[in-house]
Amino acid sequence: MKIVSYSIREDEMPALQNWQKEHPEVEIQIEKELLTPESAKKAQGADGVVVYQQKPYTRETLQALHDAGINKMSLRNVGTDNIDMDAAKELNFQITNVPVYSPNAIAEHAVWLMGRLLRREPEYSAKIAKRDLRWAPEIGQEMRMQTVGVIGTGHIGQVLIDIVRGFGAKVVCYDIYQNEKLKSEGLYVDSLDELYKQADIITLHVPSVKENIHMVNDDSISKMKDGVIIINASRGDLIDTDALIRGLDSGKIKAAGLDVYEKEVGVFNENWEGKQFPDARLENLLNRKNVIVTPHTAFYTETAVKNMIEIAHNSNVQLINGETPKNLVNLG
Amino acid sequence: MKIVSYSIREDEMPALQNWQKEHPEVEIQIEKELLTPESAKKAQGADGVVVYQQKPYTRETLQALHDAGINKMSLRNVGTDNIDMDAAKELNFQITNVPVYSPNAIAEHAVWLMGRLLRREPEYSAKIAKRDLRWAPEIGQEMRMQTVGVIGTGHIGQVLIDIVRGFGAKVVCYDIYQNEKLKSEGLYVDSLDELYKQADIITLHVPSVKENIHMVNDDSISKMKDGVIIINASRGDLIDTDALIRGLDSGKIKAAGLDVYEKEVGVFNENWEGKQFPDARLENLLNRKNVIVTPHTAFYTETAVKNMIEIAHNSNVQLINGETPKNLVNLG
Repeated sequence: MKIVSYSIREDEMPALQNWQKEHPEVEIQIEKELLTPESAKKAQGADGVVVYQQKPYTRETLQALHDAGINKMSLRNVGTDNIDMDAAKELNFQITNVPVYSPNAIAEHAVWLMGRLLRREPEYSAKIAKRDLRWAPEIGQEMRMQTVGVIGTGHIGQVLIDIVRGFGAKVVCYDIYQNEKLKSEGLYVDSLDELYKQADIITLHVPSVKENIHMVNDDSISKMKDGVIIINASRGDLIDTDALIRGLDSGKIKAAGLDVYEKEVGVFNENWEGKQFPDARLENLLNRKNVIVTPHTAFYTETAVKNMIEIAHNSNVQLINGETPKNLVNLG
Repeated sequence: MKIVSYSIREDEMPALQNWQKEHPEVEIQIEKELLTPESAKKAQGADGVVVYQQKPYTRETLQALHDAGINKMSLRNVGTDNIDMDAAKELNFQITNVPVYSPNAIAEHAVWLMGRLLRREPEYSAKIAKRDLRWAPEIGQEMRMQTVGVIGTGHIGQVLIDIVRGFGAKVVCYDIYQNEKLKSEGLYVDSLDELYKQADIITLHVPSVKENIHMVNDDSISKMKDGVIIINASRGDLIDTDALIRGLDSGKIKAAGLDVYEKEVGVFNENWEGKQFPDARLENLLNRKNVIVTPHTAFYTETAVKNMIEIAHNSNVQLINGETPKNLVNLG
């Protein structure tokens, strides 16, 4: 059995070598480049491909794979919106993704953003870089004194709740789908308005479905506590960035920690050093001492990468063996 | 009743004003300057003083207070080693301190240092400052995958254990005084060597008594896991800094988070911007991307400062009323 693994990064190699060692029956062909109509030809003679890219999987690319005899494709990530689904269906593709690779990676990152903001780390780091080692006046706050408002109580929200409760923080949460365990502990409030009223820190862990887009906007911000801290390690379009900036300017929002940004595609995961930075609004956020932007790195841990490699390759083997993996993508 | 409060900082004012409001019967005289033989004269006619400084409380200073009719002095901090105890005893002083103001402030700070190092924050921050927004190759690690070795299970160690367990991390701990609850949960190992063998992260929460000085040294480091992370938010002299640097140079120690440094007095809490930095070894540490130094700011939270203000003033009132506060300092 032979699998071609495309766009494998250096940091994925240890996990892939480990998987290979545990699966001597599978031949792995590693390709550093993305899957394109051209590179698809390299899969000729293989049984399946494992892929991960932000660039589209176009009809041409899928056709080229099909022509090379491949219709089993396993994504190492969750998102499938860059796949031409009509083409995939017509060409009889079977596709798997990795729906959950590490809720902890995201939840922990969100909490680290909270900690850095509560302790005013960017201000201290700037002082320390200048060798100003005075501790006053940038006084910090303790997590245990905060009420953390968790919007969305799926895998990630649940892990986050466990973490912040370990600090002794108070938790209030909101979700249209209530988790029985959290419900029995009385953690849910009945409305977002009630959460906005109580929370010192608000952290978003909902998908960017239509109803949630720009859920943080001028109106919702006005209902939040003065000096609220907002964390978004979910999807950029949950926040109306202009409203966020207005809230930061007025002081209504004390601080924000953002691992995502609504216009991040083509800006994050690029090197702009020495070039014209392409987004003035993001530049505005990056220059603030009370805002921390990380370029969609919340997911990026050794554990998550290991899971992405292992789950994708295991699923590809299942497809090749004629089994039905539970993470089979519905092509519509 | 009148209390003179010396060297009150701006960040202490909200807590002091709040205490004043709750104690209208007490007149507070605020002095921004330190307590010296000269400024002690300003306490004439008062009933007690509240103080906080790193500079010594000399015989001359205590004599000046005595001459002004004051022998009730309440420290807003824990340390008493800058008091001339012989003079204090001879002059019939009664002194209180604040033995515990916020274990959470210290424990949380230690955990924030862990998080920043696990996620390689200094490397990302340097990249992001240059507008390099690529996420690879600085892959992070998750707290839940770590075994955290906690040396010292007093107030602070216990809070820290609750926090890291909230993340799902494994805890091993060591103390010559074992806490019954932690013992019943099987968290103690029998020796430091065993802790060194198991721990991915080692965090120090013991006092700097003679037996503990330089407990992290070439020998103990050699017993630790390759790639260990060391956190010290306790006392600087627990670590042999030269051995730490050797361990960082060899790669044995992957990273270190230090809120204290053995030669910090006269260096921390000073502004060296534009001046010759006085400590080459500390400069060495400050320049490493896998070392985070914070200038003894772990304690510095609104909650801790509020407790320092309130406990010190409450204790001074008790002394003035002829009561015996439980935080009365033994003058020897």
